[in-house]
Amino acid sequence: MYRNYTCGELRLEHAGQEPVLAGWVQTVRNLGAMTFIDIRDRYGITQLVADENTPAQLKEMFDKLGREFVIQVKGIVRERSSKNAKMATGEIELDIKELTVLNKAAVPPFTIQDDTDGGDELRMKFRYLDLRRETVRKNLELRAKMAHVVRNYLDDLKFIETETPVLMKSTPEGARDFVVPSRMNPNQFYALPQSPQIFKQLLMVAGFDRYYQIVKCFRDEDLRADRQPEFTQIDCEMSFVELEDVLNMFEGLARHMFKEIKEIDPGAFPRITWADAMENYGCDKPDIRFGMKFKNLTGVAKGKEFKVFDEAEYIVGICAPGCGEYTRKQMDALTEFVKRSQVGAKGLVYAKVNDDGTVKSSVDKFYTQEDLAKWCDILEAKPGDLILILSGERIRALSALSVLRLEMGRRCGLMNKENFKPLWVIDFPLLEWDEDSARFYAMHHPFTSPIPVDIPLLDTDPGKVRANAYDLVINGVEIGGGSVRIHDSELQAKMFKTLGFSKQEAENQFGFLMEAFKYGAPPHAGIAFGFDRLVSMFAGLDSIRDVIAFPKNNSGRDVMNDAPSEIAQVQLDELFLSLVAPKSKTL
Amino acid sequence: MYRNYTCGELRLEHAGQEPVLAGWVQTVRNLGAMTFIDIRDRYGITQLVADENTPAQLKEMFDKLGREFVIQVKGIVRERSSKNAKMATGEIELDIKELTVLNKAAVPPFTIQDDTDGGDELRMKFRYLDLRRETVRKNLELRAKMAHVVRNYLDDLKFIETETPVLMKSTPEGARDFVVPSRMNPNQFYALPQSPQIFKQLLMVAGFDRYYQIVKCFRDEDLRADRQPEFTQIDCEMSFVELEDVLNMFEGLARHMFKEIKEIDPGAFPRITWADAMENYGCDKPDIRFGMKFKNLTGVAKGKEFKVFDEAEYIVGICAPGCGEYTRKQMDALTEFVKRSQVGAKGLVYAKVNDDGTVKSSVDKFYTQEDLAKWCDILEAKPGDLILILSGERIRALSALSVLRLEMGRRCGLMNKENFKPLWVIDFPLLEWDEDSARFYAMHHPFTSPIPVDIPLLDTDPGKVRANAYDLVINGVEIGGGSVRIHDSELQAKMFKTLGFSKQEAENQFGFLMEAFKYGAPPHAGIAFGFDRLVSMFAGLDSIRDVIAFPKNNSGRDVMNDAPSEIAQVQLDELFLSLVAPKSKTL
Repeated sequence: MYRNYTCGELRLEHAGQEPVLAGWVQTVRNLGAMTFIDIRDRYGITQLVADENTPAQLKEMFDKLGREFVIQVKGIVRERSSKNAKMATGEIELDIKELTVLNKAAVPPFTIQDDTDGGDELRMKFRYLDLRRETVRKNLELRAKMAHVVRNYLDDLKFIETETPVLMKSTPEGARDFVVPSRMNPNQFYALPQSPQIFKQLLMVAGFDRYYQIVKCFRDEDLRADRQPEFTQIDCEMSFVELEDVLNMFEGLARHMFKEIKEIDPGAFPRITWADAMENYGCDKPDIRFGMKFKNLTGVAKGKEFKVFDEAEYIVGICAPGCGEYTRKQMDALTEFVKRSQVGAKGLVYAKVNDDGTVKSSVDKFYTQEDLAKWCDILEAKPGDLILILSGERIRALSALSVLRLEMGRRCGLMNKENFKPLWVIDFPLLEWDEDSARFYAMHHPFTSPIPVDIPLLDTDPGKVRANAYDLVINGVEIGGGSVRIHDSELQAKMFKTLGFSKQEAENQFGFLMEAFKYGAPPHAGIAFGFDRLVSMFAGLDSIRDVIAFPKNNSGRDVMNDAPSEIAQVQLDELFLSLVAPKSKTL
Repeated sequence: MYRNYTCGELRLEHAGQEPVLAGWVQTVRNLGAMTFIDIRDRYGITQLVADENTPAQLKEMFDKLGREFVIQVKGIVRERSSKNAKMATGEIELDIKELTVLNKAAVPPFTIQDDTDGGDELRMKFRYLDLRRETVRKNLELRAKMAHVVRNYLDDLKFIETETPVLMKSTPEGARDFVVPSRMNPNQFYALPQSPQIFKQLLMVAGFDRYYQIVKCFRDEDLRADRQPEFTQIDCEMSFVELEDVLNMFEGLARHMFKEIKEIDPGAFPRITWADAMENYGCDKPDIRFGMKFKNLTGVAKGKEFKVFDEAEYIVGICAPGCGEYTRKQMDALTEFVKRSQVGAKGLVYAKVNDDGTVKSSVDKFYTQEDLAKWCDILEAKPGDLILILSGERIRALSALSVLRLEMGRRCGLMNKENFKPLWVIDFPLLEWDEDSARFYAMHHPFTSPIPVDIPLLDTDPGKVRANAYDLVINGVEIGGGSVRIHDSELQAKMFKTLGFSKQEAENQFGFLMEAFKYGAPPHAGIAFGFDRLVSMFAGLDSIRDVIAFPKNNSGRDVMNDAPSEIAQVQLDELFLSLVAPKSKTL
């Protein structure tokens, strides 16, 4: 062992002892007669000192150390004259007696400090140096701890952690697969799993009863800031359960994580139907850290000669408390905000409630104070509040207001990252109508079961059928989702029929799982959590990239080791593949 | 919840209670007036009974149940008249009151019992049914438990579980990579990791200090019984450690597993050098559950006019205790055994020690009783023992005798699977000379460090340099292996030179890791355990296939879901690939 203490371990009680430390040079302060060096390892930082009593040769070596040199040092622990209360080891320093340079270091391309001078790209290229920064390493340590907490919780509840194949069968439905050419089976390909969905359902057929896995999944999609080609799920499935059992089980898991990791109890998770979520928040993953619930003003705002509203299918507003003082400039900015193509509103109507209770609106010429008072009444607006109203086609208006609501939440400082407000969204529509192909699609996947009372609607009004599906949403982010699966083959057949599959098509695409179900499938249900997102949320970060040790950029590249890369012709030959020049495709 | 007890839970103390169970029909015994059905879930089996008191309609439903039907049943727990001491629930039965068929089942293609009638191929095709068999499920449960024990042990010792990329860079060295074409980076490919070697070394450069991961790795090799294209490693790395520290740490892990899983303490693991392993057992993964150590007879057996021995470079023997009574037929079989091409000996010389101490050998005409007594002396052979001798080129003779020794161990019943004899093999040669390319190759990988005292030999006699590498061998199986890595760039440069790399070649192939090492690499070392093999050994199995939920066959196929498979032309187009007909390659 190159050390007998870590750099985070020494305290005043060790004074007089002569430990050996090893680590990286964090800083060098050469004050002439005295030199101070901070030595760093994963566990902390310890101050080393060489002074007039240090042998000249040793002092000289010490003075020559550069940042990030790897050193081993022996010294005597002594009390500091000026203590640093911010450091765990701040009461002591090490009077060095022996020094070995274990490795030199070139000057790093950015400073290894929490507030580094390195830009995003540079830090990704030298990720192994970026990971030296405490703030980055802490994220990865948190990730490891969360995995540990999840596993122990599920292990205790008799879930069997089971590894499912990474080299699996390519499926036509869903997102795009990454494929892996098979050398031993020429011209055939494996696919990397988008999720272990089929395998976990098979494990239920196999009687495993409770399964989980923290598992890498893959999707070949164009990337956004919070997407990675490979990502990690906490994947779970249970047998002989109903909706209530699954929600309770995994609410238990989530609360356990909050307790163990954040030391908070968010209380019982509210449940909200998809329809209510849309009505009240305009989206299926509402951020309920703050109110500003939507109110339908269609009834009271129409018929006053204001053409925009009169022609609108739906008029919907929110009340932003205390924003009545917004200036003209601020209001213009909000109007610009909603008109951006990402939000898509045509304009913004607002009304400010004055201190005397009167209302000043952007549509004063159409509405009397009495009319406006009705708006205030519905929106529970008080003096000093700001009413914001959008209108148009219902779904578009809801969706645009949902974005505006979040913007107002941000502006009002209501989105504290340490305030966690989880909820379940339930009763999703089972099916989505697609105009282009004039058919229904499964919103979740074709094995999601309908809510039992809605089953008759499959014949009469499929669009109204609600799914036995659920999402766990925390602070506006979908953290997990799942469903009770169909285990009854007659219901499954009806489902396929509703989706417009012929028997043959259903057989071709899902025959394998249907075959398995013939041999006695238990009722089962499951869920998958986005582990990267969950960690990122617990770490108070916006991007999942920061909780992944070696992430890829938006082009799916690892800029650190320059992957993907070309491969040798002999490899292509062995795989019976030839390359097509990208240009030839666009010609 | 479809149940309030599992099928393994009810005992005499529950008599009179009215629980609900759910599970699969294991067996139906219709005795006319009475019908007994065993209901099975993951937790056990409970006997259900319908008799003359059961309502006719219910009895009729009950009688119609088939094997593997999924049922839910409510009944009253009562004491059995004839108890079954072999079953945990054997003292009670459930007098059924309500029955729901949750799912019917087609007749399974083989019986779901420990001693099934299903052949290997059929069981793999219907793996989800095979996994219902307790004996198979237990293996997977053991696997989950072992992962749990490993993780908790390493977590407690501050190892950070860190996920490394699955989509990584293809490397030319080592075994064949599986590759993944990149759509976003046309004509470029990711590779699936053969191991996270580079990433774990980077994590050490990053100061993670202690890393582990239970991780899928991939090798596109032609498969054998104990090889799978995807397999799982317990992958570990530590900083600021020397050989002794690593061996102690991971011997601790292994002993902890033996204690927690098998409830045994195998004691301190002996360490044996590679040279001694070759000398005494003829192989680098000796099975030390039994003796039969090799003895060099070259000195005493030459010069007696026996041409075979006189011309041999090396003459080596073992003593098989108590095998002196082997018949002519048995000896012929052994001779045939060693002459098989897999063993490769030209013949077998033997000598039996009679009860009176005289020796009867197959080469009596060349050797006197006095000569033979010397052999007995060296081999410590006693009356009733059998001496077996091979000769020829040294390495070939050792290797052939190593196979024969294992065969004798098997024949003598000395290879009890519940007798675990772990050991460390250390001091491997660093380099291997390859005649064809007239250069040295790294036996482990080019970052493995030499034993410090041997470093000067790199210049003078590279073949003699020993590596700071180690294998954990249990019962003749290599369970883990690793090395102290080179962290010093000068030593690394010398290593590359010895391996015949030009500076440019070294740069091209390993530049990326060398670049990282410039910024302060700590001394570090690591190990990787073959998790599938370890579980398989703990489960007393011969193949790793039985401890993998969904394994592939020897052609790399998942016969259950028929992967790999063809993909659509549009997928190929998106990936800028075209297929080459396999035949055109052989033309």
